[in-house]
Amino acid sequence: MQAYRLLYPMRTYLVVSGKGEEANVMAADWVTIVSFNPFLVGVAVAPQRTTHGLIKKYKEFVISVPSLDMLRDVWIAGTKKGPAKLKEMNITLIPSKNVSVPSIKEALANIECKVIDERDYGDHIWFVGEVVGYSYNEEAFKNGKPNPKAKFLAHLSWTEFVTFSEEIYRAE
Amino acid sequence: MQAYRLLYPMRTYLVVSGKGEEANVMAADWVTIVSFNPFLVGVAVAPQRTTHGLIKKYKEFVISVPSLDMLRDVWIAGTKKGPAKLKEMNITLIPSKNVSVPSIKEALANIECKVIDERDYGDHIWFVGEVVGYSYNEEAFKNGKPNPKAKFLAHLSWTEFVTFSEEIYRAE
Repeated sequence: MQAYRLLYPMRTYLVVSGKGEEANVMAADWVTIVSFNPFLVGVAVAPQRTTHGLIKKYKEFVISVPSLDMLRDVWIAGTKKGPAKLKEMNITLIPSKNVSVPSIKEALANIECKVIDERDYGDHIWFVGEVVGYSYNEEAFKNGKPNPKAKFLAHLSWTEFVTFSEEIYRAE
Repeated sequence: MQAYRLLYPMRTYLVVSGKGEEANVMAADWVTIVSFNPFLVGVAVAPQRTTHGLIKKYKEFVISVPSLDMLRDVWIAGTKKGPAKLKEMNITLIPSKNVSVPSIKEALANIECKVIDERDYGDHIWFVGEVVGYSYNEEAFKNGKPNPKAKFLAHLSWTEFVTFSEEIYRAE
């Protein structure tokens, strides 16, 4: 048992970095919000990843939210290295609103971040970005909240992924 | 639309802090792994929470993994303040293996952490802990990975929660 799996299933996101010919996409499970106001998001990136160098260089990144329909793209993004993999993926890079790093047209949401902090934690670098823009699919986020029918993607273990059940449980 | 909901659904965990009469439990969505080796886990805690003071005092915390069956306890932990709420909850605090902060018997897993870093991010404090011990329910983590039948809990929006579907999708 790899103990880190005790926190799984964890949501899987895509991290876009770089721009133009350098633009790259990696898959990342280790993403969370760290502040509501200002809205700050953190992501852990291994220093050997191309994404690490691109975030260091441009101080911007986009967190994209893939659906289960994008599983093949997520897998390529997570297992292949460098911008060449984008040719194998079925994604369309489109301009973001407030950063120069692109967003992903097919994603359920794109969260545009400018780096405000960077920490060296063990075998990953922790980048924290302030959210300066975002875009989203209105069917996936109806009435101001995620719609489970949008098939948000979560990572179970190495090659295995799950999505959410459509039943909603109310706490009160 | 509150933009931070674009990253939801997010897993919901319980954070145990303090010891003895001071022991307290809060619910937290903003949790992630930040390093594989060493195994480091981060959690964002608002400074007005009792948990914040207890983590500062003892430099230890436990991340517990609730199931959907614990939804009522999660809701109390997330909306009520201070150790008095434990009397309303149906949880049993038991000794942890390698920290003095207790674990939760009913949880699917307990991840025992010693604080190694603390950062002030906007309206939350980011505590990073090194995992020094853990315990788990073997049915919930069969064959070294999470078992979706264990009904891991995720937060959709304010009072609304979801769990995972049992179907597993393979990327290769």
